[in-house]
Amino acid sequence: MMGSALTMPLVDAGHEVRLVGSPLDDAIVASVAATRFHPKLGLPLDQGVIVYRHEDLDEALADVDAIALGVSCAGIGWASARIARHARPGRPIVMITKGLVWSGETLLTLPDVVRTALPAELAPSIFPAAIAGPCIAGELARRIPTCVALTSADRPTLDALRALFSTSYYHLFPSTDVVGVEVCAALKNAYAMGIAFATGMHEQQGGQPGSVAMHNVESAVFAQSVVEMSRVAGALGGDPTSAQGLAGVGDLDVTTNGGRTGRFGRWLGMGLSRDEAIAKMEGATLECLEILASMRHAIPALGSQGKLRPGSLPLLEHLAAVALDGAPVALPLGAFFEQAP
Amino acid sequence: MMGSALTMPLVDAGHEVRLVGSPLDDAIVASVAATRFHPKLGLPLDQGVIVYRHEDLDEALADVDAIALGVSCAGIGWASARIARHARPGRPIVMITKGLVWSGETLLTLPDVVRTALPAELAPSIFPAAIAGPCIAGELARRIPTCVALTSADRPTLDALRALFSTSYYHLFPSTDVVGVEVCAALKNAYAMGIAFATGMHEQQGGQPGSVAMHNVESAVFAQSVVEMSRVAGALGGDPTSAQGLAGVGDLDVTTNGGRTGRFGRWLGMGLSRDEAIAKMEGATLECLEILASMRHAIPALGSQGKLRPGSLPLLEHLAAVALDGAPVALPLGAFFEQAP
Repeated sequence: MMGSALTMPLVDAGHEVRLVGSPLDDAIVASVAATRFHPKLGLPLDQGVIVYRHEDLDEALADVDAIALGVSCAGIGWASARIARHARPGRPIVMITKGLVWSGETLLTLPDVVRTALPAELAPSIFPAAIAGPCIAGELARRIPTCVALTSADRPTLDALRALFSTSYYHLFPSTDVVGVEVCAALKNAYAMGIAFATGMHEQQGGQPGSVAMHNVESAVFAQSVVEMSRVAGALGGDPTSAQGLAGVGDLDVTTNGGRTGRFGRWLGMGLSRDEAIAKMEGATLECLEILASMRHAIPALGSQGKLRPGSLPLLEHLAAVALDGAPVALPLGAFFEQAP
Repeated sequence: MMGSALTMPLVDAGHEVRLVGSPLDDAIVASVAATRFHPKLGLPLDQGVIVYRHEDLDEALADVDAIALGVSCAGIGWASARIARHARPGRPIVMITKGLVWSGETLLTLPDVVRTALPAELAPSIFPAAIAGPCIAGELARRIPTCVALTSADRPTLDALRALFSTSYYHLFPSTDVVGVEVCAALKNAYAMGIAFATGMHEQQGGQPGSVAMHNVESAVFAQSVVEMSRVAGALGGDPTSAQGLAGVGDLDVTTNGGRTGRFGRWLGMGLSRDEAIAKMEGATLECLEILASMRHAIPALGSQGKLRPGSLPLLEHLAAVALDGAPVALPLGAFFEQAP
């Protein structure tokens, strides 16, 4: 979805865009090739977008200015290996995928994971970048004004990508804090689930939507989410203040306007068990489960490394208990905000 | 509204509560005295709440443990003078009213304004406190779990108030950063107006509510609001990180769930002129106009004092232009996020 949506500003910026499907996207590629219509975005892609099946990736990447990667987090190993042979100095790579990968010792950002897959002689000169929200793909594809965070450890890479991608409605704001931005981008999927608990709790008690509901609960969870994102960013060596910008506060806010993570959290808040809630989602990818599983490894490890104070992520620990272990929803509001961020 | 809502946790905490109306509240006082029913909250107040008309303030305050003040910002001078004679060491005063007052030289928080009105011999031993959101009054009055920030320069005052006010559903988190918390609490009324522009812009273009609308715009404005709150807090000597907590992010989030400031911003986003939008509000108090007027004085003064970099509040300056001068809505998204917070 987001990869396809990005074609809109890229075409408007005057580029030829080659959109390559993953092995899971054959039906979408066939639809766009035949009729231009993108079934998930619900609109036609521009004539300037050339679509390719995954078998034709090498042909598509032969002479490009930049490579953007938007597979699901689970496909990142496969995709990194496939694009590695097309890496060149001066050809930026930018991640749209969000996530953090547990290495057995620490959490790796996806730009780090991609870099690890590059040929050894290229790794020192390529600094994979990433785009983080707040961006609803269907809005970007309809040219709704959008501000996103663009992060890379390398300033020239940021400048090059910003020049390639910017349009009158698509604003990219550079940051060299890859860890802080990527921690926020990944964790928001877990916290958005928790923010939606309050909607479900209100419905379970027979409440109707309205300005008097359980917004006080929702907003307390929202604020604690930002505080905890900031703590995780700091624990991993990132800038804690990135949480108060687009990738943290902004992306978290956009997720409260619908989307599958919110629907999943609402079911849990209504009292459905973890397994019942997953069944309701009818096979949709739940990034929140992936990032919570990574964090479950990371929290004790960061604690024993002295990087994270035990008990400083009470909300995230509760979210993991609910979504991974099937514990009932019982938000630990009294334990929020107790330490300085 | 908020003063009346607070009676609920106070009664539940075992206190006798004396609720005194301002001169504007006679009808509410009469209703509660006659039938217990609070017409604005839409529910009865507990039998443990004794209501008083403003003429009986002195009787009500004769032997109290603490004083809470929730008049509108415009009434703060009048109310401060009225309660000053009841100030005692060991009798905490806590503000529910939100706002910042331009002194001619700097912005004063309301706890500062109240302190100035105290008898000179008491001022050194009384540290007025304040409660900041996120709290929808109608939810607190219905015992919905709520987390708020409680701020005072004095730690024992915080401890005393927290002990008096806390219940199983009302959680007060102490902060000694009076400036940071109060800046966020006051500014959120201006920024909430701007966050609502996107809803109006979407409607003006014929859009329906839904998950694809102008949420990308809304979230960019939300994130920039937090960045700017943080800058104003820092410029006034407060802690910039207070903006990422309850009083900043949390209170801003709760305001996106309705309320008059959001309705006003929506009208402006739909293209109504300032005067047309004010007319639509049918005389409702618009705190956003009061705080924007204060900030209009403060921004150049803080700039010339070297405390605030010129151009570092592009959103707030646009909000003032729209709401005070009648300029059309044209969000300067490209100027957002440009400087480190």
